[in-house]
Order: sequence, then structure tokens, then C-alpha cells
Amino acid sequence: MSYTAPLKDMLFDLRHLAGIDEIAKLPGFEEAGFDTAQAVLEECAKFNEGVVAPLNVDGDRNPSTWRDGEVTTSPGFRQAYAQFAEAGWQGLQHPAEFGGQGLPKAVGAACVEMLNSANLSFALCPLLTDGAIEALLTAASDDVKAVYLEKLVSGEWTGTMNLTEPQAGSDLALVRSKAEPQPDGTYRISGTKIFITYGEHDMARNIVHLVLARVTGAPEGVKGISLFVVPKFLVNKDGSLGQRNDVRCVSIEHKLGIKASPTAVLQFGDAGGAVGYLVGQENRGLEYMFIMMNAARYAVGVQGIAVAERAYQKAVAYAKERVQSRPVDGSINASAPIIHHPDVKRMLMTMRAYTEGCRALASVAAAAYDAAHHHPDGEVRRQNQAFYEFMVPLVKGYSTEMSIEVASLGVQVHGGMGFIEETGAAQYYRDARILTIYEGTTAIQANDLVGRKTARDGGQTAKGIAAQVAATEGQLAKSESPQAKAVLRRLTAARQAFLEVVDFVAGNTRASPNAVFAGSVPYLMLAGNLMAGWQLARSVIVAEALLAQPDTGGEDPQFLRSKIATARFYADHILSRAPAIRDAIVEGAESVTALPVDAY
Amino acid sequence: MSYTAPLKDMLFDLRHLAGIDEIAKLPGFEEAGFDTAQAVLEECAKFNEGVVAPLNVDGDRNPSTWRDGEVTTSPGFRQAYAQFAEAGWQGLQHPAEFGGQGLPKAVGAACVEMLNSANLSFALCPLLTDGAIEALLTAASDDVKAVYLEKLVSGEWTGTMNLTEPQAGSDLALVRSKAEPQPDGTYRISGTKIFITYGEHDMARNIVHLVLARVTGAPEGVKGISLFVVPKFLVNKDGSLGQRNDVRCVSIEHKLGIKASPTAVLQFGDAGGAVGYLVGQENRGLEYMFIMMNAARYAVGVQGIAVAERAYQKAVAYAKERVQSRPVDGSINASAPIIHHPDVKRMLMTMRAYTEGCRALASVAAAAYDAAHHHPDGEVRRQNQAFYEFMVPLVKGYSTEMSIEVASLGVQVHGGMGFIEETGAAQYYRDARILTIYEGTTAIQANDLVGRKTARDGGQTAKGIAAQVAATEGQLAKSESPQAKAVLRRLTAARQAFLEVVDFVAGNTRASPNAVFAGSVPYLMLAGNLMAGWQLARSVIVAEALLAQPDTGGEDPQFLRSKIATARFYADHILSRAPAIRDAIVEGAESVTALPVDAY
Repeated sequence: MSYTAPLKDMLFDLRHLAGIDEIAKLPGFEEAGFDTAQAVLEECAKFNEGVVAPLNVDGDRNPSTWRDGEVTTSPGFRQAYAQFAEAGWQGLQHPAEFGGQGLPKAVGAACVEMLNSANLSFALCPLLTDGAIEALLTAASDDVKAVYLEKLVSGEWTGTMNLTEPQAGSDLALVRSKAEPQPDGTYRISGTKIFITYGEHDMARNIVHLVLARVTGAPEGVKGISLFVVPKFLVNKDGSLGQRNDVRCVSIEHKLGIKASPTAVLQFGDAGGAVGYLVGQENRGLEYMFIMMNAARYAVGVQGIAVAERAYQKAVAYAKERVQSRPVDGSINASAPIIHHPDVKRMLMTMRAYTEGCRALASVAAAAYDAAHHHPDGEVRRQNQAFYEFMVPLVKGYSTEMSIEVASLGVQVHGGMGFIEETGAAQYYRDARILTIYEGTTAIQANDLVGRKTARDGGQTAKGIAAQVAATEGQLAKSESPQAKAVLRRLTAARQAFLEVVDFVAGNTRASPNAVFAGSVPYLMLAGNLMAGWQLARSVIVAEALLAQPDTGGEDPQFLRSKIATARFYADHILSRAPAIRDAIVEGAESVTALPVDAY
Repeated sequence: MSYTAPLKDMLFDLRHLAGIDEIAKLPGFEEAGFDTAQAVLEECAKFNEGVVAPLNVDGDRNPSTWRDGEVTTSPGFRQAYAQFAEAGWQGLQHPAEFGGQGLPKAVGAACVEMLNSANLSFALCPLLTDGAIEALLTAASDDVKAVYLEKLVSGEWTGTMNLTEPQAGSDLALVRSKAEPQPDGTYRISGTKIFITYGEHDMARNIVHLVLARVTGAPEGVKGISLFVVPKFLVNKDGSLGQRNDVRCVSIEHKLGIKASPTAVLQFGDAGGAVGYLVGQENRGLEYMFIMMNAARYAVGVQGIAVAERAYQKAVAYAKERVQSRPVDGSINASAPIIHHPDVKRMLMTMRAYTEGCRALASVAAAAYDAAHHHPDGEVRRQNQAFYEFMVPLVKGYSTEMSIEVASLGVQVHGGMGFIEETGAAQYYRDARILTIYEGTTAIQANDLVGRKTARDGGQTAKGIAAQVAATEGQLAKSESPQAKAVLRRLTAARQAFLEVVDFVAGNTRASPNAVFAGSVPYLMLAGNLMAGWQLARSVIVAEALLAQPDTGGEDPQFLRSKIATARFYADHILSRAPAIRDAIVEGAESVTALPVDAY
């Protein structure tokens, strides 16, 4: 088995950190309790382990190919996608009204992780479809919904996000694509879009492009951007596919990683204009795109966790098998599997602790999303929404940055073999490298964290979350175990560091923007580090309580002890970095911008 | 120009940190003063910028190929190598007695950096030849020297290191290759060697393999390993090439990076045994190989600096050209080149500070090597040798670890374009990934640092170096500038952290080996971080003194101010991590090894 879904850990997070049984009390989620979640996750594991994971290496060696505007995906992708859609996996988190299963995001996130662990390139197609569904659900007219949503939710058609243009990457104000209104209410779309994931492929009968463009006469900048649905094939009144629309894939990119996923350059309107349908109102496109992007950003964070998990599993398997040198403590009097060497353990524990910490963070953030959308009390919804929105840049930014480090450690554990492509560890190192870039670079996530999530409310949300961390510290303090004491100490120091940075950010964003943004990414890393460490600290409390029960609450005691050991490792080796990051942010801003541009 | 040698920085280090004019006072180096160094470096820059650098991208796209035991190198490599040898670059640091130029290592190291910045894959061939020359100079008989050294020093033939076998990587005790003594004093060598860099190629007429093997009847383990010269073509008495030896390249590897350099599997003795000539004495092979490896380890550290420099230059060029978004401080009222954004500056400064810090460290270490080999006073030689040996694992381990981070930041600065292979930033990310693995992984360097370099003398060498750092602090304290104050503060904290770790290592290596080796790599990273930061701190003192002179000592004042700014950035953002690393080592050892092997 090249991939085994970490079901125990996922279910632990769902039950004890995300509170799946609380989620199941929310209107609409009545049937989504722990047992349902467990059944869904087990089925999902079977599918991804058996069908999707085996295609991962082959896809890397045989990337998608382009010919005359058509893209042929990697071997087996078409068939696996058909099975994916057939089994209903695309609709997992989407409303029953459009054919979905309406399960909580907390459950869906675990499934998204498995799909991405199995095959990052494959998983990108459903990931983008999810984003398109979210945008249409929120902003589209009933007519547009009626035509597209069911087909997207069933996976029969797939979705894309068309934002980037050669001159407009992070800066969408520079978008130039045009939309000319037609007398029949449609628009003619023209322009060039680049970096369009699954912008063309052979896995589905139709592709629903969501495209940012400017309506003739619209204002400059981001306030003149509108969002359109531009299907690859026009849809007849009876729902059947009609004419080919005026959008053409002119090439696909040659990339460092995720090679099986086609990254398209799309040309709209070369033959007079692609037919587009406005989503929502004119000039509000960016706002709608953000809905889509927030869903996608969270999902990309989960991609980071997913590739880290896969890299970890591969490294563990190798470390248990590869025999080299005697252990330094003399415990084995012959060459031993390298997992017996302390530095190999250190690397594996780093990989494991990062992965489990970020998984727990993502699970808890998803639970907040579920409450924000389903709780009957408006104030509870608002609080959960604020919590979720604070976590999105952390899930995205921190989990993806750590995934690069984890994938790199995975190569290192393999030694020379790690550098040989046939081994497979290098693929994760290449694949992971996109995650801190697409759907907003880490700097863009950090801008969001600084501006919209911290400075805008004067740091109130951040401080509220820090108060929750402090409450966890209070619970930890009741434990006498050395593990709990070690975790408590680092958690307290990290929270204090975080609070000082929040004050620095909230207090200086207006007056000294350079100083604050010089530390924006370090702030994101500190915040992500703390929040993941917090969830692991909560896990220690839960695991110690379960171990104190005669039947350990039905959980595997070895798993619980490992959870505690992993949390302590995280605290000692990762969370312990927080105070230094604070210093760099609060005292080091000046040196970031001291060098004049022409001195570089 | 795709690469511009950082001559100002190299010459600054040579003059003010490595003390080239002091080196020129040593016997044998009388003509190697600053002016000579400058002339050599300028010539070297011209060659590498003009001839070697332009082959780098092409080599990545057209790797070496294998057919029927022959390897064809990438386009242009043969011709460039001929020019390299013709111009005498191979012999730069080698004795005049064998046709070399006998220049100091401090000068040679800068040239090695340039060659590697220009083309890591190309530079590996001379790098291995350097190692072979060192081993033969130290250990070979006069007969063997007479046959091989001149040809190697002239670059007419090239050298290789044959250590690794499928079951013997880091653990050379497991080497199985055999050597059968023959009546004529030669040996018949048989066995399989893997990961042999430039083990076969078409750039030179002969290849001189240095091979580890066991003489029949030799003891088990590392004490039964001998070193042999096994030439690809046997050499006739008149020095002309004779018969093909019984060594065959059976394949080359498909690698993540450094694709142009052939990594060979060599089969010795399939037709009865390759003719081998013993180097030095039987069963002392590992000792000789260490000479070669120490040279190669230092050089691989320089490779890290080299690829970091190249990645930095590419990122700066892109950041100055790519226009995206308005600066947050409102200093430009339109979309601006991204170098105006604080987070891009932070990334570029991180790349720059790491590179300059490690370059300075390597330069100073090379000067110690020169003094250790040329100083008339035995005690001075001994001190310098101890200093150099302490620095080798840091130059190797720290410079290569940082190079991966720097190359990754280089991709990040490019955004989505960084992930597209045609951009070129991804090549550095792939190429750099081998550097922490070959010639001993970072963990192997850390074992060396802990065992031979720290525990063996009870931490005395380490403490002696810390005392030199403290002396620098004393000089820094005389400056009133905020830069010097900031650097002083971080340097002091880092030195104190280092000393605590040295005590921990020296005090516990025997009694608690697991605890010490759990922190061996973090110790290496802390020590490397401190030593690079120390050299940048020395640079601040020098630069401030020069700026206080009316003619700034002939140095460019902008360069001097940039040096100070870079040193301060390093102190604020990199050196400031040292105390957290100490905590992780001294207080976090237990959690590294807490998880039982079957719980992974």
C-alpha cells in the first residue's frame, strides 16, 4: 500500500477537537454524527488508497499532454475521475438541493485530505469544482444555478477559476479581459488567462469556467471587475450540450511538480467573443471570487497537510527498512534500521508533528465554518465566522509552508536515494512547492491576516482567540505530567509572543505600514505555529483524560500515548520558535527595508 | 548576463576577514597577495560568466546520456571543459611541483564558488578531481604520484571517489568490494559502486577512480578498508594510455537535479578484476578517504553558497522587473516593481544575508587551512588546523541547508512563474537539494561536529572559538551605531546559547548519547548560524572603520553601507533564532526519542 489514510488521527480530531457530535446538533447536520463521519471516512480511504493513490507516480512520469487545443490527461485519470464522480464524492459537502450530501465541512475536509494525499494532481480538479460551486451557490441567479449546479455537484462537469493574466497575478486590479454586453443579456468575453488549473482536459464532458473580466465602460481597478460563467460547451435549453464556445486552450505549462494536472493558457474570444453569463451583479466580481478563493485557500492548506502526510508515510517506511550503522546508545550491536538513529527520529517527528498539528487546526477551523453556516444563533454564527476567517490564511499559509519543509525532510531521510526520481520522495518535494504560491502566495495570505483579519478590528478577534488559548493553558495546568508541563510552558510563551505581535500589528499598520508588512509573513508563521500547537495541547488534555479511563474511551492507548509524545515534540521543537519570531517582527522591521533598491 | 560574480563581496572577505595579505606572508604564498587574488578572481569571473554559466540551463534540459557503457555529457560541456583545463583552473590550489599554481585555498575557494554558481553540474567534475589530488598528495607513493598527479592537476584526466555501494551509504563499515593482491604488487578489484559522480563521461581522456575495497583477509568493519587507484585506461610506462581497465559504467541515474552531471553505477571486475594500485598502506583507506572527503565537504559547502548566490541574483532581477501592486507605504502611486514590497525585500534580504554570511565563514575557514599548512610555527599550525576542522562540518552542513531555503525563497519571489521550469528558478531548488546529502548528509556532518570536533576535546576548541567571538563583541561594543548595537545584542545571545550547547554536548555524549545526538543537527545549525553571524559582525566593524576614513579605504561606500545593513538583517532575523535552538537541544531531547519505533 503506497498510502494509508490516517483514519485514527482524523477521527480523533473530528471527535475530540472539532466536536463532530456538537456539529450534528446543528440544523441540517442531524445525520452527521460520529458514526456517519467514520463510515464516510472509511469508504473514502478505501477509494483513495485503492483507486487514486496508485496513479500518482505514473501521472508524474506521464504528465498531461496538449495537442491542437485538446488535453489528454495522465494514464488512468479519466477512469478514476469517472469512478470519483459516480461514487458521489464531489457532492459530499454540497447542498442536497443540488444533489449533494450536505455533510459538514469538518467531514469533507478529511476526505479532501485523503484525495490530495493520494494524488495532488488528480485532486486539483475536484478542488476547483468545489470553488466554482461555492461561488455559484452564493452569488449566481437561479437561472444560472439551475443550469450548472447539479452537473457540477455530480461531478459530471468540472469547474475552473480564471483570474490570472500575464500582467495580473497577485494584483487583480490589472485584469484586462473584456466583457461586452449583448442585447440578449449575455456577454461576449475576450482576453487571455494563464495558470488555469484543469482549464482543459478530457475527464468531463463540459468545463465551467468562472472568469474575471471588465464590462465595457467599467471603472479601473478592482471595482470594475465582474464574474462570468463561460462554459466550454454552451448548454441547450434541455440541458444537453450545444455548440463549442469561443474559448481555446493554446498551451499547457511545463512545471516543476503537479505535472499530471494541466495548467492551461486559455484564449477567450478569438472568434468574436466567448458567450458568458454574468454571476450576480456587475463590478462585484472580486467579492464573489473571494468566496471561491476562500474555499480554495482552505483546500490548498489541506493539500499541504495531505502531501506532508504522504511524505511522512514514505519516509517512515524507508527508515524502518534501510539498514545503516549501529545506534549510538549501543542498544543494538549491529547495523540497524535507520529509524533507530536519533536524527532520523528527529526528522520523522518533525514531519509528524507538523502534519498532525496542521490537521488538527484545519479540522477545528472547518467546524467553525459549519457552525458559522448552520448555527441558529446569529451571534454564535458571527463569532464562528470571525474565527474561521482568521484561520483561513493560517491554514493556507502555515500548512503549505510547513509542507515544503516536511517534503524536503522526506527527501533527506532517504539519503542519496531521495534524490533519485524513481524513489518517489522527490515528487512530493516538487509537488509541494506550488502550494505556497497558488491561490494567493504566503505574502498575500499574510496581507489578509494583517489587514482584514487583525488591523481592521484592532486585534479583537486575535485577542479573543488568544483568550481561548489561555483557557487551554488553564486546563493543562491541572495535569502533573511532564508532557503537559512542557507543552504548557511553550504554549504560554508562544501565546504571549503572539499577543505582542498582535499589538504591534494593530498599533502600527496605519502609521508604519512598512514596519508591519516587513513582518507579515513571520506573523503568519507565528500565528499558524501557535494555533497548531494549541490544538495539539488540547489533544494532550483529551488524551490524558482518556488514558485515565478504564477503557481509554474506546481509543487505542498506544495512539493516545503517541499523540501526547507528538504534541510534546511539537512544543519543544516547533512552538519554541515563537519568541524568536516575535523578536524578528517587533525589533527587526527596520533592517528588512534598510537597503535601497539599487543596492540589491 | 545570467550570472555576475560577486567580486566586491569576495574581495572584501578575502582582504578584511580572511586576511589575504597575512596569508601572503606565509612561506610559499609570497606572490599571493591582494593584487594577485584580485587579478585571478577577475579572470575567473570572466571565464565562468562567459563560458560556463551559459551552459547551465541547457545542461538541465539535456542531461548526460548513457549508451552501451559510454556517457555523453550535455551540450557544450566537452568544449567548456577543454577550455577550463587549458586555462589551468584545475591546478589553481595545487602544488607547483605537479604543475599547479599553488595559490591559497582562500583564493581557490572564491574561484570554486564562481564555477559552481555558473554551473553546479559542470563544477562537480573538477570538484571530484580536487579531492582525488588531495588524497594522492597526502597518501600515495611517489610512483603513483608520478603517474597520476600531473595529469590530474592539468585537468587532462579527471578523478572520482568510489565509496558508496548499494548496502553501504553513510555506513562505510558495510563496504564489500574486494581487492585481491597480485604477484606484481597490483590488486584485482571487483564490486559494484553506486552514486559515482562523473564516474563515466566524455570530457577527458582518462578517469582516475579512487576506490574503497577490502583486501582478501582484511578485518571486518572500517578497519579493513583500503584505498586504490583504478584508472579507466591503464597507463603505459611512457605515460601514454594503454588497455581499457575492467571497470564499466552500467547505468546513470535519473535525478531530481544536477541533471547534467552523470551519476554512475560502476561495475568493477566483471572480466576478471580491474587493475588497482594501492594508495598508502593496506587497511588505512578510510583515513585517506577522509582527506579527500574533507576537501570535498568544504567544497560542497561552497556549492551551497554558490547556488544561493545564483538564486539570489535571479530573484533580484525578477523583483526589479515584475510590476505588481502599489507599495503599502504609498511611496509610489501606481503598481510598482515587486522589490518595493516589504515581504519581497524580506525574502531577498534573507537570501542575501545567508549567502554573504556563509561566504564569509567559508573564506575565513579557508584562510585557517592555509595557515595550518604553511605557517612556520607548529603551534599556530595546530590551532589553525583545529579551527579549520571545526568549521568544515559547519561550512558543509549549514551552507547547504541554507541553500535549500534560499533556492526555495528564490522560487517564491517569482510567484507562479517560479513553478514553470522555463523560468529557471526551479532548477536551483532541484539542484540544491543534493547538497545536504552527498559527501555526508547533514546528520553525518553533525556526528562529526559532536564526536570528533566537540566531545573529543571536551569542548575546548569550541570554547576557544567562542572566546574569539567574544573578542569581536568587545570591538563591536565600541561603536555607537544602532546597527552595531543590534548586531552585538544578537551575537552575544547566540554565543551564550552556543556555549550552553557545547557544555551539554561535551558533558553528555558518553552518558546520554541519545540525548546529544537527538540535537546534533540543531547544534550544527546553531553553530553555523553563529559562525556566519560572527563573520558578518566582523564585517560591520571593518565597514564602519572604512566609512570613517576620508577615502573609505578605497572601497565603494554604498557597498560598505549595504554590508552593514545585511549584517544587521542577519542578526535580527537569522542569528536571533539561536536561543530557541538551544532550548530545543537542551530541553527537548527526550521528546525526539519518546515514540517507540512501532508507533511511527
